[in-house]
Amino acid sequence: MPDLAVLNISQLVTVAGSPRPRTCGELRELGLIPDGALLVRQGKLVAVGTRARIEPLLAGDCEVVDAGGRIVLPGFVDAHTHPVFAGNRADEYELRAAGVSYREIASHGGGIRSTVRRTREATESGLLAAARKYQEWFLRGGTTTIEAKSGYGLSLEAELKILRVIRQMDVQGPLRCVPTFLGAHEVPDEFHGRIDGYIEVVVKEMLPRVAAEKLARYCDIFVEPFVFPAEKARVVLHAAAQLGFGLRIHADQFTPDEGARLAAEFRAATADHLEATTPAGLEALKTAGVQPVLLPASVYNLGSTHYPAARRMIDLGLAVVLATDFNPGSSPTASMPMVLSLACTQMKMTPAETIVAATFNAACSLGLSAEIGSLETGKAADFAIHDCNDYRELPYFFGRETARAVHRGGLCVYK
Amino acid sequence: MPDLAVLNISQLVTVAGSPRPRTCGELRELGLIPDGALLVRQGKLVAVGTRARIEPLLAGDCEVVDAGGRIVLPGFVDAHTHPVFAGNRADEYELRAAGVSYREIASHGGGIRSTVRRTREATESGLLAAARKYQEWFLRGGTTTIEAKSGYGLSLEAELKILRVIRQMDVQGPLRCVPTFLGAHEVPDEFHGRIDGYIEVVVKEMLPRVAAEKLARYCDIFVEPFVFPAEKARVVLHAAAQLGFGLRIHADQFTPDEGARLAAEFRAATADHLEATTPAGLEALKTAGVQPVLLPASVYNLGSTHYPAARRMIDLGLAVVLATDFNPGSSPTASMPMVLSLACTQMKMTPAETIVAATFNAACSLGLSAEIGSLETGKAADFAIHDCNDYRELPYFFGRETARAVHRGGLCVYK
Repeated sequence: MPDLAVLNISQLVTVAGSPRPRTCGELRELGLIPDGALLVRQGKLVAVGTRARIEPLLAGDCEVVDAGGRIVLPGFVDAHTHPVFAGNRADEYELRAAGVSYREIASHGGGIRSTVRRTREATESGLLAAARKYQEWFLRGGTTTIEAKSGYGLSLEAELKILRVIRQMDVQGPLRCVPTFLGAHEVPDEFHGRIDGYIEVVVKEMLPRVAAEKLARYCDIFVEPFVFPAEKARVVLHAAAQLGFGLRIHADQFTPDEGARLAAEFRAATADHLEATTPAGLEALKTAGVQPVLLPASVYNLGSTHYPAARRMIDLGLAVVLATDFNPGSSPTASMPMVLSLACTQMKMTPAETIVAATFNAACSLGLSAEIGSLETGKAADFAIHDCNDYRELPYFFGRETARAVHRGGLCVYK
Repeated sequence: MPDLAVLNISQLVTVAGSPRPRTCGELRELGLIPDGALLVRQGKLVAVGTRARIEPLLAGDCEVVDAGGRIVLPGFVDAHTHPVFAGNRADEYELRAAGVSYREIASHGGGIRSTVRRTREATESGLLAAARKYQEWFLRGGTTTIEAKSGYGLSLEAELKILRVIRQMDVQGPLRCVPTFLGAHEVPDEFHGRIDGYIEVVVKEMLPRVAAEKLARYCDIFVEPFVFPAEKARVVLHAAAQLGFGLRIHADQFTPDEGARLAAEFRAATADHLEATTPAGLEALKTAGVQPVLLPASVYNLGSTHYPAARRMIDLGLAVVLATDFNPGSSPTASMPMVLSLACTQMKMTPAETIVAATFNAACSLGLSAEIGSLETGKAADFAIHDCNDYRELPYFFGRETARAVHRGGLCVYK
């Protein structure tokens, strides 16, 4: 494989810097190189710098990509997605727009339960075909890595089926997929009123099997008083930690602090959502070194205005991450540029902060910051050429799919 | 030119129906044809129906487009855009995200005045080149017609320059452009404190010249107590009406009812924005037959939550229109699918209502409903194939550029 060089980059956004998750002022440091260039060998970055410095290093057979005066960013790392499900819920979306409440929809078998029903019925190949469509949407926004959760199976077989689809997505590419087991996404119908019974299945059947087959790196759970309250969640989190899973927690989407405190107690990698978290909950996360994963697209799409307190988190020293929460209910978007726009306009993050949160900090939250998340010598050549002249245009001109070429490990996977 | 047929359409959204602007329940009537097909001759639709009915009509040399089981919609008609300007304001966007107030930015020469300064300095060809970039963004969202306003010149020469660029855009395509003169967008710096002096220039120099050169079909004015209050705006609107311009009004973006009442008084074609309009103002619009043009993308992008009262307007019998308000300050998006998403999630319109508001009703507001805005025999073959299986997916899966092929007058202008 010959070397690959990328030249004619208006702004090379390296996000290079401290190897620790970034917060406060560091979140604004993009490591910007005007008229930058990249040199890739065997899928890894071997030189990153100005064009003047890189161009003399090019061998005769080097393949050269002309970025056309556009910007280049690290591939986005989308650290919270639910990409494997059957069908979609555009019908319920229409009902909600027409004024039908979520509760009413759920009482007719809608909501997450309808996706679970259809996902259980689907074949592995059917689910993979659907996921492939969504993979392209991620690429079009410049994403190269996703954290991918199960959670629409809620039975041993169906959860394993979803995790095998995620494994296939990762092996076959083009996206890197980090698998998370989310068997405790909801209590399935057949365990209605018997939450302890379902938790026993999760802990005794699912988790050991997922661990044995190495189908997930993380375990997640939806912590809410009306879904899995803290005292129940503790059982799952304890078992998962014992088996060596990293922990991520759906925390405080609706109810304050129970999820955040639990994430702190277990020193989870991340606490996700945090729309309802109070300053006390944030302090607990800070003390325990938990990264907040903010999901503004789901807030937007539900028509809510209760965005998480991003500015307060940053001021407090939390290493904020941004993600899409891609799923068929609350957040049907795979677009990181859309999330950046939401973060700037609705949470008052700056464009630079949103980029660091969606690349390097996200990679940190997945334990992958040595390999991806920034463009530095020795790291994987995962990057995207975006159709902008200036990085600030990425959130500013919103509603676009900006990627014009996406490379993973040096290989062009979208153009 | 051989005939063109489009087959294999999962849902053909014709928006066929009453020739009057639609409101109340009519707004939800999409004229949906499952497994639909189109036949185009000489740029016009000659048959619209089911595949079973259309396929036998195909001549041997007919060019056939396979929509791949996707949906087909009329090209969106974006009835409020400001597409001709120099530079952009991504720098100010960053400042605002970082907490600097619009007032502070404006006091340093920023805001609309910075765009006016740069647009005055730009050449006609420079402005046209910039506009071409944005034209592609409109197409990627499935838009085939835009209403295009001047208003970043604010001098006779600069306004004429912008309107000539709009004329060139329309003549050279691919978008149809309906030109609107917006000389009264703002009082330029050189007339600071002398609003009457500027109005005299607009009325005595600009309007007659624009009329003589037939450079605009509509005249618009930014009505606000702190920009052009009603008693000043009346002078401009009266002169424009005398010269035969249709009227559109930037109304009640910040202050209630002055703009709406003026629009009613002059029986303007449209009153645009209406974020602050009260029920009394809406009644005035209804009585006068003025169409409201709603611009949720600017509300979103300014980080506000004061969306116009779409549901109340529809219940009242107003024929609402949706548009992007594409401009470099408050609404840097050219995406009608984004506007549809905003309308569903933030204003509780249904997906069907948003489509009718963005096609047929918008065409009505421009006096073009006999030619465009719906897919009916005799109308122009302006349509887009969107990458969805069901029309409801268009707003539901948000943050995408959904058009996979766009035809204007039968010709493929984007693919």
